[in-house]
Amino acid sequence: MSASSRELAELSGPALNATLTATSIVVLPVGSIEHHGSHLPVATDLIMADEMSARAVDEAAQAGLDVWRLPPLAYTKSDEHDWAPGTFWIGADELLATLRGIGRSLARTPARTLVLINGHGGNVAPLGVALRELRRLYDLRTFSLSVAVPSAPEESGLGIHGGWGETSLMMHLRPDLVAHGSATRAIPEGLADYRHIGFAGAPVQFGWLSDDFGFDGVLGDPTRADASAGASVAEDFVRIAVESLEEISRFDPAGGGA
Amino acid sequence: MSASSRELAELSGPALNATLTATSIVVLPVGSIEHHGSHLPVATDLIMADEMSARAVDEAAQAGLDVWRLPPLAYTKSDEHDWAPGTFWIGADELLATLRGIGRSLARTPARTLVLINGHGGNVAPLGVALRELRRLYDLRTFSLSVAVPSAPEESGLGIHGGWGETSLMMHLRPDLVAHGSATRAIPEGLADYRHIGFAGAPVQFGWLSDDFGFDGVLGDPTRADASAGASVAEDFVRIAVESLEEISRFDPAGGGA
Amino acid sequence: MSASSRELAELSGPALNATLTATSIVVLPVGSIEHHGSHLPVATDLIMADEMSARAVDEAAQAGLDVWRLPPLAYTKSDEHDWAPGTFWIGADELLATLRGIGRSLARTPARTLVLINGHGGNVAPLGVALRELRRLYDLRTFSLSVAVPSAPEESGLGIHGGWGETSLMMHLRPDLVAHGSATRAIPEGLADYRHIGFAGAPVQFGWLSDDFGFDGVLGDPTRADASAGASVAEDFVRIAVESLEEISRFDPAGGGA
Amino acid sequence: MSASSRELAELSGPALNATLTATSIVVLPVGSIEHHGSHLPVATDLIMADEMSARAVDEAAQAGLDVWRLPPLAYTKSDEHDWAPGTFWIGADELLATLRGIGRSLARTPARTLVLINGHGGNVAPLGVALRELRRLYDLRTFSLSVAVPSAPEESGLGIHGGWGETSLMMHLRPDLVAHGSATRAIPEGLADYRHIGFAGAPVQFGWLSDDFGFDGVLGDPTRADASAGASVAEDFVRIAVESLEEISRFDPAGGGA
Amino acid sequence: MSASSRELAELSGPALNATLTATSIVVLPVGSIEHHGSHLPVATDLIMADEMSARAVDEAAQAGLDVWRLPPLAYTKSDEHDWAPGTFWIGADELLATLRGIGRSLARTPARTLVLINGHGGNVAPLGVALRELRRLYDLRTFSLSVAVPSAPEESGLGIHGGWGETSLMMHLRPDLVAHGSATRAIPEGLADYRHIGFAGAPVQFGWLSDDFGFDGVLGDPTRADASAGASVAEDFVRIAVESLEEISRFDPAGGGA
Amino acid sequence: MSASSRELAELSGPALNATLTATSIVVLPVGSIEHHGSHLPVATDLIMADEMSARAVDEAAQAGLDVWRLPPLAYTKSDEHDWAPGTFWIGADELLATLRGIGRSLARTPARTLVLINGHGGNVAPLGVALRELRRLYDLRTFSLSVAVPSAPEESGLGIHGGWGETSLMMHLRPDLVAHGSATRAIPEGLADYRHIGFAGAPVQFGWLSDDFGFDGVLGDPTRADASAGASVAEDFVRIAVESLEEISRFDPAGGGA
Repeated sequence: MSASSRELAELSGPALNATLTATSIVVLPVGSIEHHGSHLPVATDLIMADEMSARAVDEAAQAGLDVWRLPPLAYTKSDEHDWAPGTFWIGADELLATLRGIGRSLARTPARTLVLINGHGGNVAPLGVALRELRRLYDLRTFSLSVAVPSAPEESGLGIHGGWGETSLMMHLRPDLVAHGSATRAIPEGLADYRHIGFAGAPVQFGWLSDDFGFDGVLGDPTRADASAGASVAEDFVRIAVESLEEISRFDPAGGGA
Repeated sequence: MSASSRELAELSGPALNATLTATSIVVLPVGSIEHHGSHLPVATDLIMADEMSARAVDEAAQAGLDVWRLPPLAYTKSDEHDWAPGTFWIGADELLATLRGIGRSLARTPARTLVLINGHGGNVAPLGVALRELRRLYDLRTFSLSVAVPSAPEESGLGIHGGWGETSLMMHLRPDLVAHGSATRAIPEGLADYRHIGFAGAPVQFGWLSDDFGFDGVLGDPTRADASAGASVAEDFVRIAVESLEEISRFDPAGGGA
Repeated sequence: MSASSRELAELSGPALNATLTATSIVVLPVGSIEHHGSHLPVATDLIMADEMSARAVDEAAQAGLDVWRLPPLAYTKSDEHDWAPGTFWIGADELLATLRGIGRSLARTPARTLVLINGHGGNVAPLGVALRELRRLYDLRTFSLSVAVPSAPEESGLGIHGGWGETSLMMHLRPDLVAHGSATRAIPEGLADYRHIGFAGAPVQFGWLSDDFGFDGVLGDPTRADASAGASVAEDFVRIAVESLEEISRFDPAGGGA
Repeated sequence: MSASSRELAELSGPALNATLTATSIVVLPVGSIEHHGSHLPVATDLIMADEMSARAVDEAAQAGLDVWRLPPLAYTKSDEHDWAPGTFWIGADELLATLRGIGRSLARTPARTLVLINGHGGNVAPLGVALRELRRLYDLRTFSLSVAVPSAPEESGLGIHGGWGETSLMMHLRPDLVAHGSATRAIPEGLADYRHIGFAGAPVQFGWLSDDFGFDGVLGDPTRADASAGASVAEDFVRIAVESLEEISRFDPAGGGA
Repeated sequence: MSASSRELAELSGPALNATLTATSIVVLPVGSIEHHGSHLPVATDLIMADEMSARAVDEAAQAGLDVWRLPPLAYTKSDEHDWAPGTFWIGADELLATLRGIGRSLARTPARTLVLINGHGGNVAPLGVALRELRRLYDLRTFSLSVAVPSAPEESGLGIHGGWGETSLMMHLRPDLVAHGSATRAIPEGLADYRHIGFAGAPVQFGWLSDDFGFDGVLGDPTRADASAGASVAEDFVRIAVESLEEISRFDPAGGGA
Repeated sequence: MSASSRELAELSGPALNATLTATSIVVLPVGSIEHHGSHLPVATDLIMADEMSARAVDEAAQAGLDVWRLPPLAYTKSDEHDWAPGTFWIGADELLATLRGIGRSLARTPARTLVLINGHGGNVAPLGVALRELRRLYDLRTFSLSVAVPSAPEESGLGIHGGWGETSLMMHLRPDLVAHGSATRAIPEGLADYRHIGFAGAPVQFGWLSDDFGFDGVLGDPTRADASAGASVAEDFVRIAVESLEEISRFDPAGGGA
């Protein structure tokens, strides 16, 4: 094993068992393979979860945290893109069952903490279910953190799938896979008419398929995305992720205030 | 049938079939039966979902909306309170299966819109999964709205289960069921030490059981709750719910802006 | 909590835990939401299970029995009415899973006895499965009792769904919901030709959908139903239910004879 | 193929497809492998279902009915005898899934009618669920008939498992497998104290395990069983089964009376 | 019970419990009901598994082995013949669930060893899964052995379903059920063009339905089958099975060499 | 997208849809994360499946085949190593459900051919089930090929997990992850005593857990493994895989011989 690697699966079983302790943090990257418009690869969420978690774990390890990374989950819940060829997905039931298997397996090791670093918004709900189930079933401490990308002002807060932030991040991470020239603006302006109905954070949530908005499955405006903005997005996320891992390392929900 | 009732199940099958149209909105109240501390009944979430949805549907109907209400779901996902006697719950898989059955059934009628009015925070994640599944499986328009209760300032934003807002609302709705004298403050002050980890809205979500915080399952400070504050909470929610139903009645994700 | 209420979910968790004992009896009303012809609401079975169980529990409590009531299950197995808009149902697998959840939850309390008071004939088979499963899985004493309604003589014993007895009972319980004028006779007279094939109790059971009989989903003759007959039906059932709860309170399958 | 055989599985696929028609009746024997006391083999219910269905099908065929027999199901729902070594069982979910598979398969053939001849009381509830599911899912006409054995007078109507009737029948069918000398009386006399609680037919059903009654898993009094009584039981059942198959052959739930 | 019978289900529960020991071997015959061309009955695999296991168990018992037989599983995984009327099958999930039930049940007895004698090639994969699951879940020693039939030289190794060997064996076992005159040669000669793709044992496995090969569901050449060859096949298999049971009786994966 | 990449998930959805045709072959690498002794990483099977499939797809593409690769499945069925910390696994049911999801997704694209390149022996059985299910459910042509590694002569044919071949291959692929110094010989010599019982290919299969053999979970003798032997293993496998993909590209089970 390379001395500095924090890839848990690169250890042998006995080495892993000897290395992990009750304070170790194990990170599972959770991606997706799904349609992201004509300018981004279907692996976008997998690439983001994989790369961002790798950077965060490396930095956190250098900062002295006892943190490790598992191989990513590639195939997750993308039913909202089922209509689009190139989406490869499993249902929420199967995703939960898979996460139960991984939680059960982790509970066989000395580690007690699982952190899901998630690249796909459609996974937030099922991962929310899983956090609680794995906490109860296997007595694990469980956390999740999604790779959040900012919206550009001209996106009216609607740049949630293949928009400026995500496209910029991909232009930073894998410029070879971005067909920026084919990116087009896809902002469902009409949504601004609704005060209560909206995406994450709005009081009224709605079930949507990505072809419900009159576009090609993209939500956002990737046209002005650029790699340097993506580098900032990456840097910001990694910083937040490392801070989060540090918080997780000392997290005690029953602890008194400072 | 009483002339003004909007209780869908009070109609006969043929009447229901003749009354509902493609623009009808059907509301399903989603409660829970779970431990809420020693001062609130285990039916708290069911009572809130039931009463708040009934008021909202009645007001919306008076305002001319074509809106109807189904009998509530009482038993839902309360695994975080499994440790506490008095919690009656089913798993996320079973809740999803039940919601699939209700969605499939609704799709047999002329109505195409299902709105979940939810009284229990622990249901937000599985309902999020259901919204999308029912949209895809049965071509329904699906929405959810949770009965949000505000925190008191002294709750540090942590009044999420049995705290000031929920207790006040119950003192308004069912004062006979509130044992206010046995309410005690239960604020995990230590959580303020974490910038990223937190409850709904925080970047880092965590899996918790309600006895993880060093208290008796309550999160919040119900001691200063009072019925008049609860009346305001109710009024505010009903107003938002009615506005939301109006928005839902004209919601078109692919529509242009005003 | 109101002093006299026997609604278990109106207790707080700790109060419930302190109140229930190994001899407490917990009643779960089991309804359905299903087509009952053009004269009865789809909530008929839910209303019957809810009201009849409430009366029985109140009377039994007044008679000194330690008996409590849970909120009703509204959505159950009504696959035989799936064809009819207004039927809202879940499959037998989901009903069993829900009942397992409720049984598991009850086993967390000091109570050991669960009684299902059932308003829907289509639930008898799955409840029969559940009684045995919950007995074995959670070491509960389990019982079921269905709201049986008598047939009128002119129904040839076939008044099993929306007929004279059920309609009369509903005219007593909720006259505002009965459209008696639209009731029509629906007796599959041909069934009398079969000595062995028949409904409950016949040697040969058959799988039927409620539109197999050449009528509109009703089986029976509701035309002569009236509220005073319904009052007698209610009284008879409550008496039997109270007697049954008393028997349940002292039931010992291994006990010697008197 | 032997000219007279009515064993459907002895036909080739093409022959079976050419032989069955929309009026053919296909019988599935449903047994169990479960503890029946120390005097009867664990295959008792399988043997009864197998032998009785074979005789009934042969007689019905000789009487001109277009009736065929499938190989028996040996392993079914015997959870009430799970405690007893020698019981081999699957859960209700698995039994239903198996029956769905058989129903789906039958729907591939020209036949439209499935009759379950059942040897085990514990299967009555899940078979009741299956009758309706298979009717709806595969548009089959579905029926069930259980091998009912009479009680001896001294059994107080409680000879339901390993008692006089069943033991007599087995002494007729397979005397080599009956250890009559080890049979003992096992009548839970105390059950007579309950007016409403009882076995099949009683208003109050209860969930029981076969060791709940203070005996060794038997319910009944096999001590006076004898083979000639068993021969009568067999004869009576076969007659009823043949009459039932005749009724099934002309069964029309929507048909007018004679 | 007949003195010499090794049919486990012919024992009573207590006798079975007293007879089996930790060294007992329990054999479960696993058949199928599936299309085998126009010359063989759909019960072919069930008949082979049943008859061959019975002979093997009898011979092994005479040779002093403590070996017993359960009733056969008739309905198993035959999805590759789903297209053909006369195939009665359950899915792999259901077959596994059934085998888990049988394994759980066996673990209630003193026996610790389960041997599956399998007549159907399509079961090899799911039985492989089951062997490992039952070993882990119930701490059973688990084995499987398929009734292998040889190919005739003119079958080019492709006589795997209804071919020379299987037809010969059936002509030996049940000549009354073989319509030899309707047997035709069905050899997909083109398969010889592939060095790597092939049936069991080939490096590249492929998913096939039995109508993928341009024939009527048969793979092989049954035209020259004869009963005396079948007698040899039977004899060879029984010898191997008895030797295998002897090996199983002393099998110790951690034991040193002789 | 890099011009030469054959990573399907690096395409956008529309590009993927335009690129794939009915003759395209899509390869899914199937790995595992499981204990492989103290000398090999738990990701061994994932690394082998990933690297070997990548080389094979690249070579096949250069040879003109229309072949593409999906991201690997990392977590699969490793129940036989459940006892060993470092094994991360899901059950056969979950693996099948995941593969159904991937098959269903692939059927949304123009491609019709799925090839599983598998690094883990324990997956052979469930993949065998999946090949047939995906063929039937989604009308896909399905194939599997396992990364077979040869045994050294001194392994007596038992080098199946962490032995000479696998260790050599890993010394070639990822020498940084092999702790060759800690490798020890683990040959269950006693297995040679059994003529019929054995690993893949033996007439009698047995269910084993990897700690059943008296060693530490390894089966084989890795002590003489070396990287140059591993390079040959890799070369041989890639050659066979490319030849197999070529055969798959023209595979026609109903085709006549050459």
